[in-house]
Amino acid sequence: MTGNLHEECGVFGVALNRKSDVAHLAYYGLYALQHRGQEGAGIAVCDDGVISCHKDVGLVNDVFSKHALSSLPNGRMAIGHVRYSTTGKDPRINVQPLVINHLKGRMAIAHNGNLTNDAVLRRSLELNGSIFHTTSDTEVIAYTVTKHRLKESSLESAVSRTMDEIKGAFSLLIMSPQKLIAARDPWGFRPLSLASFEDGYVVSSETCAFDSIGAKFIRDIEPGEIITIKDGQISSDRSHCGKEKRSLCVFEFIYFARPDSILEGESVQVARQRAGAFLALEHPAQADVVIGVPDSGIDAALGYARQSGIPYGIGLIKNKYIGRTFIQPEQTMRENGVRIKLNPVSSAVKGKRVILIDDSIVRGTTSMRIVRLLRDAGAKEVHFRSAAPKFLYPCYFGTDIDSSENLFAYKHTDEEMRRILDVDSLGFLSVENVVKLTQNPSLGFCTACFSSIYPCRPENGHEKDKYQSPLKENENG
Amino acid sequence: MTGNLHEECGVFGVALNRKSDVAHLAYYGLYALQHRGQEGAGIAVCDDGVISCHKDVGLVNDVFSKHALSSLPNGRMAIGHVRYSTTGKDPRINVQPLVINHLKGRMAIAHNGNLTNDAVLRRSLELNGSIFHTTSDTEVIAYTVTKHRLKESSLESAVSRTMDEIKGAFSLLIMSPQKLIAARDPWGFRPLSLASFEDGYVVSSETCAFDSIGAKFIRDIEPGEIITIKDGQISSDRSHCGKEKRSLCVFEFIYFARPDSILEGESVQVARQRAGAFLALEHPAQADVVIGVPDSGIDAALGYARQSGIPYGIGLIKNKYIGRTFIQPEQTMRENGVRIKLNPVSSAVKGKRVILIDDSIVRGTTSMRIVRLLRDAGAKEVHFRSAAPKFLYPCYFGTDIDSSENLFAYKHTDEEMRRILDVDSLGFLSVENVVKLTQNPSLGFCTACFSSIYPCRPENGHEKDKYQSPLKENENG
Amino acid sequence: MTGNLHEECGVFGVALNRKSDVAHLAYYGLYALQHRGQEGAGIAVCDDGVISCHKDVGLVNDVFSKHALSSLPNGRMAIGHVRYSTTGKDPRINVQPLVINHLKGRMAIAHNGNLTNDAVLRRSLELNGSIFHTTSDTEVIAYTVTKHRLKESSLESAVSRTMDEIKGAFSLLIMSPQKLIAARDPWGFRPLSLASFEDGYVVSSETCAFDSIGAKFIRDIEPGEIITIKDGQISSDRSHCGKEKRSLCVFEFIYFARPDSILEGESVQVARQRAGAFLALEHPAQADVVIGVPDSGIDAALGYARQSGIPYGIGLIKNKYIGRTFIQPEQTMRENGVRIKLNPVSSAVKGKRVILIDDSIVRGTTSMRIVRLLRDAGAKEVHFRSAAPKFLYPCYFGTDIDSSENLFAYKHTDEEMRRILDVDSLGFLSVENVVKLTQNPSLGFCTACFSSIYPCRPENGHEKDKYQSPLKENENG
Amino acid sequence: MTGNLHEECGVFGVALNRKSDVAHLAYYGLYALQHRGQEGAGIAVCDDGVISCHKDVGLVNDVFSKHALSSLPNGRMAIGHVRYSTTGKDPRINVQPLVINHLKGRMAIAHNGNLTNDAVLRRSLELNGSIFHTTSDTEVIAYTVTKHRLKESSLESAVSRTMDEIKGAFSLLIMSPQKLIAARDPWGFRPLSLASFEDGYVVSSETCAFDSIGAKFIRDIEPGEIITIKDGQISSDRSHCGKEKRSLCVFEFIYFARPDSILEGESVQVARQRAGAFLALEHPAQADVVIGVPDSGIDAALGYARQSGIPYGIGLIKNKYIGRTFIQPEQTMRENGVRIKLNPVSSAVKGKRVILIDDSIVRGTTSMRIVRLLRDAGAKEVHFRSAAPKFLYPCYFGTDIDSSENLFAYKHTDEEMRRILDVDSLGFLSVENVVKLTQNPSLGFCTACFSSIYPCRPENGHEKDKYQSPLKENENG
Repeated sequence: MTGNLHEECGVFGVALNRKSDVAHLAYYGLYALQHRGQEGAGIAVCDDGVISCHKDVGLVNDVFSKHALSSLPNGRMAIGHVRYSTTGKDPRINVQPLVINHLKGRMAIAHNGNLTNDAVLRRSLELNGSIFHTTSDTEVIAYTVTKHRLKESSLESAVSRTMDEIKGAFSLLIMSPQKLIAARDPWGFRPLSLASFEDGYVVSSETCAFDSIGAKFIRDIEPGEIITIKDGQISSDRSHCGKEKRSLCVFEFIYFARPDSILEGESVQVARQRAGAFLALEHPAQADVVIGVPDSGIDAALGYARQSGIPYGIGLIKNKYIGRTFIQPEQTMRENGVRIKLNPVSSAVKGKRVILIDDSIVRGTTSMRIVRLLRDAGAKEVHFRSAAPKFLYPCYFGTDIDSSENLFAYKHTDEEMRRILDVDSLGFLSVENVVKLTQNPSLGFCTACFSSIYPCRPENGHEKDKYQSPLKENENG
Repeated sequence: MTGNLHEECGVFGVALNRKSDVAHLAYYGLYALQHRGQEGAGIAVCDDGVISCHKDVGLVNDVFSKHALSSLPNGRMAIGHVRYSTTGKDPRINVQPLVINHLKGRMAIAHNGNLTNDAVLRRSLELNGSIFHTTSDTEVIAYTVTKHRLKESSLESAVSRTMDEIKGAFSLLIMSPQKLIAARDPWGFRPLSLASFEDGYVVSSETCAFDSIGAKFIRDIEPGEIITIKDGQISSDRSHCGKEKRSLCVFEFIYFARPDSILEGESVQVARQRAGAFLALEHPAQADVVIGVPDSGIDAALGYARQSGIPYGIGLIKNKYIGRTFIQPEQTMRENGVRIKLNPVSSAVKGKRVILIDDSIVRGTTSMRIVRLLRDAGAKEVHFRSAAPKFLYPCYFGTDIDSSENLFAYKHTDEEMRRILDVDSLGFLSVENVVKLTQNPSLGFCTACFSSIYPCRPENGHEKDKYQSPLKENENG
Repeated sequence: MTGNLHEECGVFGVALNRKSDVAHLAYYGLYALQHRGQEGAGIAVCDDGVISCHKDVGLVNDVFSKHALSSLPNGRMAIGHVRYSTTGKDPRINVQPLVINHLKGRMAIAHNGNLTNDAVLRRSLELNGSIFHTTSDTEVIAYTVTKHRLKESSLESAVSRTMDEIKGAFSLLIMSPQKLIAARDPWGFRPLSLASFEDGYVVSSETCAFDSIGAKFIRDIEPGEIITIKDGQISSDRSHCGKEKRSLCVFEFIYFARPDSILEGESVQVARQRAGAFLALEHPAQADVVIGVPDSGIDAALGYARQSGIPYGIGLIKNKYIGRTFIQPEQTMRENGVRIKLNPVSSAVKGKRVILIDDSIVRGTTSMRIVRLLRDAGAKEVHFRSAAPKFLYPCYFGTDIDSSENLFAYKHTDEEMRRILDVDSLGFLSVENVVKLTQNPSLGFCTACFSSIYPCRPENGHEKDKYQSPLKENENG
Repeated sequence: MTGNLHEECGVFGVALNRKSDVAHLAYYGLYALQHRGQEGAGIAVCDDGVISCHKDVGLVNDVFSKHALSSLPNGRMAIGHVRYSTTGKDPRINVQPLVINHLKGRMAIAHNGNLTNDAVLRRSLELNGSIFHTTSDTEVIAYTVTKHRLKESSLESAVSRTMDEIKGAFSLLIMSPQKLIAARDPWGFRPLSLASFEDGYVVSSETCAFDSIGAKFIRDIEPGEIITIKDGQISSDRSHCGKEKRSLCVFEFIYFARPDSILEGESVQVARQRAGAFLALEHPAQADVVIGVPDSGIDAALGYARQSGIPYGIGLIKNKYIGRTFIQPEQTMRENGVRIKLNPVSSAVKGKRVILIDDSIVRGTTSMRIVRLLRDAGAKEVHFRSAAPKFLYPCYFGTDIDSSENLFAYKHTDEEMRRILDVDSLGFLSVENVVKLTQNPSLGFCTACFSSIYPCRPENGHEKDKYQSPLKENENG
């Protein structure tokens, strides 16, 4: 419901020691990761050294008809990707996995994250005669791996050399005719986990995909780690581990990940309930009911209710049938207060003082509309609480948190925000507490969008703040 | 999640006093009613006396592409329908609205409910030379209206004569080139409400559709009432009112309706929370958390938690992206415990004594699977509570509650059920309390599926108990 | 290429004595009949007494995907239909076969032709309470058969009684759970032929469909004959034979039928070549080459060339890839002489005196455009010859030859036509010779559109000449 | 009908001096070239320096829905491509135009032909770190142009340097944000022509596309010529002209091109009629009728008839409605002599001695089937004549004429062929006469597939004769 916050991409890979219906496994894995990207999906299968791929724009459901899924052969390995694509022309070219041919054969690659130095690398490659089919940084990674592969004796060494060059956020899956390689950037911006499945392994952005196929979680892949799976054997290169400060995107806990996933050993649902509890402590209010904006504000609302002792209620119903091809109502209708996607439950809020919890406030427009819904339904007071701190700075690590001038909290004082939203009180989780959402003290977070403390600096061509950069298209999930 | 309980159909109508984009209004209305039928959808528009229709199998979203919706003209009236179709061959022919031509011109009809004497009427019509294109009782209604229209001076009189003949559940919308007629059976089995919208009126199975377009609720249409809207004027024929005992399907409150709808002045969400509270009083248990099966068990769980004082938790995550074209996993995968549609949140249930609330238990298989999910996720105890009493008898009034021999509670003793479900305790809401879900004492309910007290008897050819009747196809939403 | 002349419908039926893939047979049969109707297609299969149907708007190719075709079961009987639909709203409802239920069970019906008294029959049925789902006269036939079926002991008797009532053109296929019935109107306006296939029979509008599946032609069904096929046995009711003057539509030979079909024992190709030969005798010209407008003017051109001794040439190339979804060029482009569908071969016409043969001239616009193409390509002279006589009167027997005021030859003198078309000379086949296209002297033709001698008079509500009748929609193929 | 001979690709480009609906022009141009490739189509438009592209597998008709076509912006330039794709996995990746980004910006490329040294170039590029998204040689060309563009001052110079490196058949269109470049290989294997249109230019594989949009033919682009169109100005680089012997594929005249096209100043239809005339002189026969296999044998049959004085007839009807999604009959049906795609006209052949002309014989199977059709239809004698000489050697220049061991004429003696085809006599056009199909003595032909005289030798990795090469996929239209 936040309208303008999108996680950009989820990846899923499977490598078994015998031929199996790996495309189906990837299909169910991607279903579980669908919340991480709804604009495109794809699966590449490796069958006896031959890599086949099907991908297109749309939900997993749309892209993989029965016919399309069965057109992929059985094999021992597969990687899949779901994508939130930028609104560029012809988004189809950027759908992943990217499958390319180079001197040593074929290679498929799926990427969640965003490089901060891809413009520099791209220019250098172009100066050497490279051509690009896509506008995504994933192709830059593919080139860089290829470049090193010519000199290195193995693909995993080439990936290791690549990690010396590329900067920023990446949770990568690379499939060659023989191997599946999973790599995570040294900061660990994006999650990536490992599980066992039958006589092999599964890798996924989130553990909920393991549950969906019945795989058994082993551990998270470490920041900087490169894992290689070949013939049922797994090996790990930790040479890039520990080089950078751990910086998991804290918004994975607040918004992106599914509540039933476990990230770095911590339950997403528990973290969200803790966010609610901290909010109750930081920003208490006298009220009759606590309600959450579905789906990602629900757990924080429950946490707030438990901590404050104010009853938890279900005050907003989300229409779950709004699909991609939904025809938006016209402006006049919208102004007349249509409640198509979200409708208040009047019995839950009428005549009541309501504490409303959402995961965050980005541009403010959605929040404003929700408050108005509740007031129209008879809420006596509305106290808005955001489970995330104030967004003040852009993100360069794989989300579309925009330049400061487009961020509600950057442009307005607290009192202005309260008046614009038309709420009785307004409270944001503090940056001090956002890093305490999990109980593991060693787990470092990236809080750059709240604090401007960037774990690594974006290079030339990435300044979101100056103007809507022409390189915007390069940002990729 | 109950797997084999389906509401059959929702209807929506709009009649304005000037030409407008009524197809779009119907589209948004049907979206809000989508939970009442996901197998087919249709809209008929009346433009200057000319009736056009588009309908097909699929979700509203699938049936109405931008192109399809814009192919319908502007007009002053429209009726729409969402349908849960039986699994007969060629379900397309039964999609509604039904549009037919008779001596007096064109007529569109949309129907929610199920006649109990349609076989008798159909045979009598056939003996007179009638031919039927569909297998639905809606066509029987259309014929009966037509028959009376030849002798009556107005369509509303013909509908009134029709109501002398047809028995059972029906909430009907009939659109002629000049009028929109809404009628509800004298028992009031299925809901039907009236609202004002701009310079006209809107009729809908549920009030949530009014909210979706910003219409203003006026009142429920009474059991037995016939409302006629023409040129912005509304008139009512109450000659069939009060002839039968009020018998609103209680399962509308427990399962079918959306929690933000108001039926007969009573909030669906409040009724569900009361169900939970009664359950807590009737079937208490020592436990650490109360969780509901999403979506329809959630409110009852909250009601149980509040009454019992046991914390409410969110223990099951439903994948909202599973669409119609979802490819089901194979048997072997399913046995390996895939958790694609529903996944437990282990942090919410691990090591805990869980009270699990679902709206009902029909065949038991789905409930069994959910219990197993919780046990696998580490629940120490599972106490199952059903917000509906035991299903013991078939329904003939527009739901697919089957013959007794297919009903879990009919075939097994309480202890057998407990063992089959593998739960520590099991409790159903009592029939005494199910009629107290709402606070309005004058509101009568049909509880036939629990009590065998049928407000009206199904006639020949409807015995669900004897065998899978060939007339099964005739049942229609 | 004539732009506004359409045959309306083709029918195909198969009845075997054992279960087989009759849907596939119908599919290939309909392919062969596709030229008779490109707007809709359908197949109904009878499997052990159960009738299933799939139909939709579009070419056979579009309507029957692999999936759709395989959704039809195997069976012993099937009937199929291809349709040229009128441009009414929602053409889908008129696609055939029509499948209905009546007292005695299910019945599928496919119809090529046009009744002349359907408005009268329809009104009488409506007065008796009948409702109509479609606007086609096929539904009138279905009702009339049903009406008689209630009193008659067999379906074939009911069809016979129906033939006492209905007037006009019809080649009918009716399939009940037990029988396949084929009937042809007493005038024999539209063709209908019988063949043997394996252990059963096949019926088709044209013999080319027999060739397509390898069936063996037996004979034509006689005007007025009713044939019943049951359990591999065939029986014939000739009680309506010989009651009317044989009146096969002569335009079947000139335009509608495929050149490789045999109608009433006569080759269509030979008839067309004879048309060309008669034209050469009636309207000789000094010229260098004879060319035909593809496809239906080709054979007449060859006949003209042979008779006259002037060389035959191929002067116009038709783009065979123009499908239903072809996007028409805009007006300005069209005026600039685009040659997308038809392009002249300049080497064949440049500097030459050309005799151009088309099957007919209806409104003149298409002919005008073709002449201009040839002149632009350098033709020195163009002599236009029409293989049909002048269209002067409307047709009521299943083609869309329109009211006189829309017919080129009715509105203009010969010299006016010549000038409008911009040709050096113009000649039409004479009505005297058009009936000599075949060598069988006993074969009577309907020439009403040329001569105004109507074999049977259209009743009330069919006057095409007065105005564009609202009953236009009732005309059906 | 020859079943296994395919032209591979057609190209079309337009460059105007003002913004216009160039996508529509390309759409109609590609329609006219559809016979050159039915497996994929695409259009790239350049609008104010921004290049957009839409392409997919399928006919022009299927790929460009109204919606898809209108999604392309107006612009000053466009290039389009129709493709016959090899049967590799995922043919979508090879659909053209190829649109890539390099240091100097964006570039779209469309290619008809086949390089003979692409494997060598590809390996060299890969050794330098290049990655390939497609398996087509077009990407090799794109890389080579990019490589030279880094050093050359203009795109046309880079194309010129590229032509120093690449060998084989290519008719190329390259569009940059500013320019449209058209280039043809120095041998002139594939045709490429230039026309004027409004205030700009059009380039096309065949002149029939000029006719379709009303463009005015100027001249053929010369073998080796590079034409650059910028801001409405045209310039020509002839530095590669005259370096190689002119070697236009003679099969363009016999089979590939449309009869209304003019190649190198010669009419395709006239050339085919001359082929027929030469056949009549080389291989006379006593017969009653000459018939051609539609569509490409028709003109040769007419030429044979004129030369021999034996009447020309139309003896085979082709079903023009067989589309891409046509469901093939099963083996048993096929053996029973189904005549779905092609049906003989019995009146034209029954009891007659028939001379049957086809464009060529490749594997013999199709020819065998056609002869059998004619015999079944009652032909007394069948004398088969091929308008092409015997195929004895593979083609490396953009057609799929296969290795010798798959060619009918290579594997069998004349008498064996006659017996296998079951014909009374058999004759092929001689290689001496095939080069005389046109009247222009200076027009050199490639006759390698008949004579083994290859104008340029295929390099490593292209030996079709050894085995079904894994590089087969690299061959591209």
